[in-house]
Amino acid sequence: MNILYDERLDGALAPTDKSSVLTHLQQALPDMTLLHREEDLRPFECDGLSAYRVLPMLVAMPHTLEQVEALMRCCFELGVPVVTRGAGTGLSGGALPLEQGVLLVMSRFAQILDVDPDARIARVQPGVRNLAISEAAAPFGLYYAPDPSSQIACSIGGNVAENAGGVHCLKYGLTVHNVLKIEVITIEGERMTLGSDAFDAPGFDLLALFTGSEGMLGVITEITVKLLPKPESAKVLMASFDDVEKAGKAVGDIIAAGIIPGGLEMMDNLAIRAAEDFIRAGYPVEAEAILLCELDGAEADVDDDCATVREVLENAGATNIAQARDDAERALFWAGRKNAFPAVGRMSPDYYCMDGTIPRRELPRVLKGIAELSEQHGLRVANVFHAGDGNMHPLILFDANRPGELEKAETVGGKILELCVEAGGSITGEHGVGREKINQMCAQFQPDELTAFHAVKAAFDARRLLNPGKNIPTLQRCAEFGAMHVHKGELPHPELPRF
Amino acid sequence: MNILYDERLDGALAPTDKSSVLTHLQQALPDMTLLHREEDLRPFECDGLSAYRVLPMLVAMPHTLEQVEALMRCCFELGVPVVTRGAGTGLSGGALPLEQGVLLVMSRFAQILDVDPDARIARVQPGVRNLAISEAAAPFGLYYAPDPSSQIACSIGGNVAENAGGVHCLKYGLTVHNVLKIEVITIEGERMTLGSDAFDAPGFDLLALFTGSEGMLGVITEITVKLLPKPESAKVLMASFDDVEKAGKAVGDIIAAGIIPGGLEMMDNLAIRAAEDFIRAGYPVEAEAILLCELDGAEADVDDDCATVREVLENAGATNIAQARDDAERALFWAGRKNAFPAVGRMSPDYYCMDGTIPRRELPRVLKGIAELSEQHGLRVANVFHAGDGNMHPLILFDANRPGELEKAETVGGKILELCVEAGGSITGEHGVGREKINQMCAQFQPDELTAFHAVKAAFDARRLLNPGKNIPTLQRCAEFGAMHVHKGELPHPELPRF
Repeated sequence: MNILYDERLDGALAPTDKSSVLTHLQQALPDMTLLHREEDLRPFECDGLSAYRVLPMLVAMPHTLEQVEALMRCCFELGVPVVTRGAGTGLSGGALPLEQGVLLVMSRFAQILDVDPDARIARVQPGVRNLAISEAAAPFGLYYAPDPSSQIACSIGGNVAENAGGVHCLKYGLTVHNVLKIEVITIEGERMTLGSDAFDAPGFDLLALFTGSEGMLGVITEITVKLLPKPESAKVLMASFDDVEKAGKAVGDIIAAGIIPGGLEMMDNLAIRAAEDFIRAGYPVEAEAILLCELDGAEADVDDDCATVREVLENAGATNIAQARDDAERALFWAGRKNAFPAVGRMSPDYYCMDGTIPRRELPRVLKGIAELSEQHGLRVANVFHAGDGNMHPLILFDANRPGELEKAETVGGKILELCVEAGGSITGEHGVGREKINQMCAQFQPDELTAFHAVKAAFDARRLLNPGKNIPTLQRCAEFGAMHVHKGELPHPELPRF
Repeated sequence: MNILYDERLDGALAPTDKSSVLTHLQQALPDMTLLHREEDLRPFECDGLSAYRVLPMLVAMPHTLEQVEALMRCCFELGVPVVTRGAGTGLSGGALPLEQGVLLVMSRFAQILDVDPDARIARVQPGVRNLAISEAAAPFGLYYAPDPSSQIACSIGGNVAENAGGVHCLKYGLTVHNVLKIEVITIEGERMTLGSDAFDAPGFDLLALFTGSEGMLGVITEITVKLLPKPESAKVLMASFDDVEKAGKAVGDIIAAGIIPGGLEMMDNLAIRAAEDFIRAGYPVEAEAILLCELDGAEADVDDDCATVREVLENAGATNIAQARDDAERALFWAGRKNAFPAVGRMSPDYYCMDGTIPRRELPRVLKGIAELSEQHGLRVANVFHAGDGNMHPLILFDANRPGELEKAETVGGKILELCVEAGGSITGEHGVGREKINQMCAQFQPDELTAFHAVKAAFDARRLLNPGKNIPTLQRCAEFGAMHVHKGELPHPELPRF
């Protein structure tokens, strides 16, 4: 693997003189909003992962593409790092600012440029809210499928940057499966179109490469998404279980029965009680676990699938199966699930949200492992997650004001993610790596694989000015973290490149 | 954009001494089959695109991963280019050998390693035939969805390298949507795992990057594919039209009605007559065009969809609509379509197959444009293609023995692809760029975009030893070809990097 260095690199990491950068940008971009006073910067000090806070050096809020281009060129010339931010709802600190960097806020690019019902596509700016796309498509009977729980607030640019998921991704795929084309601007201020309106584009799949790249390869300035026809019918079953592992096994049984539910979500007792207390969704507070299974499609098909799933759930030992009577109750069932995170937040001063994925068959074993870790370390863990995808969201409850509890929570979180990796899964499903999970990447990947990531990064941003310190750890960081992945007994490469 | 040069590069393009390479490889790999006599090399001189033929310098047929690693390391050290070949069914010359290169034949890696019906995945070696995966999964009621017409012969490694499509890709996606994980070996002999068994993997999406990379980034040595449950029911409608454009418009109407058919294929009169003459599929030889529309899913759902599609087809002016009475007739309807290429081959000494994609709404206009080009240049063109995807396969009929006809066919082909690009589409849907369409890539992409491709290539293979001269044209080639893409009136970058 070839990592090719840019000798100007070190400049990027040198301390930057704020006032000279400010002066330079103000002169180059007199019409762009540029925040620099502490009180103006404060609202941008964190994203949805509020545990980490950093005051940015400057906040840039362009409103034209020409300004974005010029800003990127200036930062490239000055060697100033750039962190791009959408709505700031990300849960892994991907938009956490840098003290020595510019925070590029894309919220002014919030126009829906085109909805084409015949081609079933929408062309939008990155600051458009996820749900706003479905609202714009609704008059044509269409919608945009990926639905992160933050969909009323999160913006599509961030969804692409993080390859966001949601309740319906089991059937309809992640963001990467629902995006056709993006426009990007590189750190050198070049515009590129990746993907195409047609169903495939030749050359390397740079569209997929940029999707989920967490702002490390370029700034996304326009997105063309696929729209899907709204299913004719959707029904939700809620099954109760007296045992978490039985519920975990039922998930695999449903899939093995040939059903692909629109959504298949699991909550354990702690999550159920939290959500019920907050939303009054009608959840069974005595159950050890519930499964919410949505079936969608043509009316007759949905009825058939409901009957099959009921049978599977009964055989798997469900103690009760309820079906939402109408769309209002269906919405209520989902409201409990979608508000589970804030609901858990009402039970504990702090919680730490994990995002590990595992192969479905490992669900019972990993759930048991999490329960054991919870007991060993004396911290409660609520489980609420995309069971069908094997995408777990254990929420570790703690009180940051009690000395040592944050560290204990981080330890439990790290161990849970290592359990996921060991089970053949990964440390993040849909929330991204960001700042939060960068050390766990050392456990996930071999040095050769990390080196490949760095080589790709260098192809677009050799000076590593875009979102440094996120997503892909340096090999040096991994060596220091002491969790270097050892593959098949081989030690890491003796001569590691240093970053 | 940063292109970082490897100064050793030029060595790779220097003439190579065959006998010294042979001696070196024989010594390093005494147990590996290594063909070097002309009569042994002859069978490998072309792939499915028989218009181009080159005798490889050497053919290597390893049967262990250690041999592949050692071979790659040797070629890297010697600066000898490597072209990887699967079953050799590719239609764009992607596996065309090099006179100065080693052809790496992966056909001995032909084992199905694991079928896991609960996780719905299969783990296979690259030389496994596409159809063999579905056969192995059939006892569990599962199958592998992408189905290129060559599926009885083509191998899955080549499918991944070319991001192969097929009749069912409209509903079930291309290869990239159906692969979970691959193992690869780089030109430096390093093994990497890309993707994961779980539903998403953190870091950059190198799995998608490798899928469709046409052997330019590494050698694929193992593939984990998704399996889908076989639909309960599948029915096929065949609609006749007295006008090609009407049929083209009907395609968009079906999609706009909220239906996603399992397959939606179109054939024009020339293709219909060729196929009928060859297969006796029961096609209407007087029709100007037919649409084959397969609907699959739950029984009741399929019946509903059939009724909707019938209505849409009638409104679109279909002169007749037939429904396959049983699975035997359904298979026959598809046999005509899947054998259309060889069928057309019986009508003309030679044909030239295009693979352009366009947005569906442009079908009527582009079909008209193709008819005009056909008339202007006096060459017959048969159209047979994945209409639902907007993936066209015009077959340009010619006789290579008549002076100037090949050139004329290439001209018409080039103009058709330019028409596709101009309509917002691309020069290849599922056959890849390979050697054949490398000049058209100059029309498809801007210099900045091509430079991004080269930068990514350099990250994995800075000496450009893997499949050089395919897929991604050098900027110098584009300048010589004279078809440099001009974007929004801007001239190409004045200081082009040279390759």
